[in-house]
Amino acid sequence: MNKKEVLKLKEEAQNHLVNELLPFWESRMIDEKNGGYITHFDKDGKDTGEDEKSLIAQTRCLYTASSVHRAGYGDGRFAGMAKHGADFLIGKMWDNENEGFYWMMDRKGNVKIDRKIIYGHSFAIYALSEYTLSTGDPRGIEYAQKVFDLIQKYCTDTMYGGYWEMFHRDWTLCGPGSQGGDRKTLDVHMHLMEAFTTLYECTGRDVHHRKLLEVIDLLLYRIIHPKYKTGIPQFFKNWEIAPQIKFETIWGWDRFSAEGQKANLTDNTCYGHNAEFAWLLIHALDILKTNPDVYADVFRTIFDHTVNNGIDYEYGGVFVEGSHAGGVYDMEKEFWQQAEVLTALLDAYIMFRDPVYWEAYQNVHRFVMDKVVNKAVGEWYPLLTRKGEPIWTHMGHSWKINYHTVRSMIQSIQRLDKILQSM
Amino acid sequence: MNKKEVLKLKEEAQNHLVNELLPFWESRMIDEKNGGYITHFDKDGKDTGEDEKSLIAQTRCLYTASSVHRAGYGDGRFAGMAKHGADFLIGKMWDNENEGFYWMMDRKGNVKIDRKIIYGHSFAIYALSEYTLSTGDPRGIEYAQKVFDLIQKYCTDTMYGGYWEMFHRDWTLCGPGSQGGDRKTLDVHMHLMEAFTTLYECTGRDVHHRKLLEVIDLLLYRIIHPKYKTGIPQFFKNWEIAPQIKFETIWGWDRFSAEGQKANLTDNTCYGHNAEFAWLLIHALDILKTNPDVYADVFRTIFDHTVNNGIDYEYGGVFVEGSHAGGVYDMEKEFWQQAEVLTALLDAYIMFRDPVYWEAYQNVHRFVMDKVVNKAVGEWYPLLTRKGEPIWTHMGHSWKINYHTVRSMIQSIQRLDKILQSM
Repeated sequence: MNKKEVLKLKEEAQNHLVNELLPFWESRMIDEKNGGYITHFDKDGKDTGEDEKSLIAQTRCLYTASSVHRAGYGDGRFAGMAKHGADFLIGKMWDNENEGFYWMMDRKGNVKIDRKIIYGHSFAIYALSEYTLSTGDPRGIEYAQKVFDLIQKYCTDTMYGGYWEMFHRDWTLCGPGSQGGDRKTLDVHMHLMEAFTTLYECTGRDVHHRKLLEVIDLLLYRIIHPKYKTGIPQFFKNWEIAPQIKFETIWGWDRFSAEGQKANLTDNTCYGHNAEFAWLLIHALDILKTNPDVYADVFRTIFDHTVNNGIDYEYGGVFVEGSHAGGVYDMEKEFWQQAEVLTALLDAYIMFRDPVYWEAYQNVHRFVMDKVVNKAVGEWYPLLTRKGEPIWTHMGHSWKINYHTVRSMIQSIQRLDKILQSM
Repeated sequence: MNKKEVLKLKEEAQNHLVNELLPFWESRMIDEKNGGYITHFDKDGKDTGEDEKSLIAQTRCLYTASSVHRAGYGDGRFAGMAKHGADFLIGKMWDNENEGFYWMMDRKGNVKIDRKIIYGHSFAIYALSEYTLSTGDPRGIEYAQKVFDLIQKYCTDTMYGGYWEMFHRDWTLCGPGSQGGDRKTLDVHMHLMEAFTTLYECTGRDVHHRKLLEVIDLLLYRIIHPKYKTGIPQFFKNWEIAPQIKFETIWGWDRFSAEGQKANLTDNTCYGHNAEFAWLLIHALDILKTNPDVYADVFRTIFDHTVNNGIDYEYGGVFVEGSHAGGVYDMEKEFWQQAEVLTALLDAYIMFRDPVYWEAYQNVHRFVMDKVVNKAVGEWYPLLTRKGEPIWTHMGHSWKINYHTVRSMIQSIQRLDKILQSM
């Protein structure tokens, strides 16, 4: 690798961010009529009209607008877009009676699904903290802290540790099985780590610091595989591994069979999650002013598992999932996994300076730019075949928005800059 | 045993309660000048003038006054005494800036020790809930719930489960060792069970129900000895048994050596705590509408350990502490252990109808009435020799008040009534 080659990749990422991704969202996401964000777009970037505003799409758009502004893009316009979303989130999605945010509204702001879902609340903390860090509006951190307090009150399991994840409107715990009230997941705990990191970055408060350290320990010593350091998706309350099932309340299209079960019930790990966990932990340690080398073995194991199993060296990009011990079950390509692996592989290269990670980064970068980006409009296809032909083609939906795509470009550019500075 | 014998014991308890204990406190505890309760009395029942109002003595007096009224004693006068204490507790001891209650005030209500100690906060929840149950004043349960919420926010260990116990004024965790910030104790978790029981009795709320079930599980599966079911006093955060040390902030006079350590660092169990745990759990199960027989083995084991090791069949009364496997280390007699064992042995008899428990009850009852009660004034000596000669003689202090003595009489009378009805 040489400087020119790195510079070229950085410029390509910058161009994609500034001239494709940001204009796509800036020109479409503001709901002038009802407030908040419009989040449903077809392959041509046309509003599908679906009458939904989900907690995760609203908070992720708020995060995106805030982070874009904080990273120095958009000449202040994204700060205004962030405020627009914060107004709707706080004004319309907050449950004034029971506190917390509703899970799903219609576009006007009427409640469609009133469950209190911690996955969504982790993004509320993340986005509202980023919003205050970016704009200085104190409402962001005020509500981020309210949500943090609610989670500590209603969701901790004081017997086995960790957090319960699925609640009814009044914060009574949902039932077991597909209602999810008896499960603990990698997904939620990882996103709580992400949320508590930015919350602590904003407040510097001791309690946020402590709970961040605790959720890091939960991820390291309960949730990732003791040997392979790969993420285990679902657990029962006592951290016994649970067969991976589909929940009633979903936030993605994990591909389950008609029975709602995976073929490999208890031996599934997802490359995107593993890589995302690794770089989010490196970021958390940075905010905590802790040297990430203390977990160098964990990072090396995760990154090696990713490059040895998750990368498609034939057709490019990142596979969906496989076994903890190695070997791939699902060779399709999901957009968000590409995004998270991009950031993670740059962290891997910066940490270990191993050219294997750089090669893998180049591979995924190329696959994203050449296959995943829908050139006609500038956003990413959500799902592609192994070879890179689009399977699903919508550009926006309650579970597919700008958080992974925009963040991966902002984070990659910062890391490519760091690499350039060290050359 | 016959009915006449039971009746005689009940009448003796009733007489002691109504004609000795309650008049002692009614005539002395109200601080007309500064509000709140006066809690320091010498062996003659004379105010010592010590310029202290401790969180535990104030909350325990509030509990006592409230529970006396709820149990039907005092013709309404104790409701007024309870309100008098609630006014001081809420008005003077609450930290308006950081929330929570201060640990130690002077009589006027100036802060002397500003730490946030969870032992004291468990009694705040217990007393304030009992106060609302007894008088209907909604301020009690409002503040009980505020304290519950603070404990959930600041004190849970989301990695290993359980609660942290010692905090600074701003709810930052205290340091390790003698500051207690790295320890978890039987004492605090048992009193949280007691507190959450009365909190849930008052509110019927789901979250109070869940946290009560969780703390019961913590006690059953982390804190009591797996084989002997006896209480283990101190743990590190991961529930590894910690050598029993003396903390900087204390709430009693546990006898440590000059070095602040017990002779039997990791093999100490206290008969009073074991018996108290058993009857408080039976009471919690009653409030939870759960049949206590599900834990019959646990109760039988604890009660048998108590009667086989803790009862002094030669001189009467309950010893201080000994080994989990059996055998006594400390043969002195502490007042509170007598009180808790009285209630527990009646529960044991009601549950198993084993005459061994009835005999042990009679033994302790006799020892209390003949030796522990300071006949001249009507309260109990705090500490006596094995043979029953007073060692310490104060009647009231920040760590020695009416909670154990009055409660044991109210609870014993109710249980003796139950036994009488079944005869």
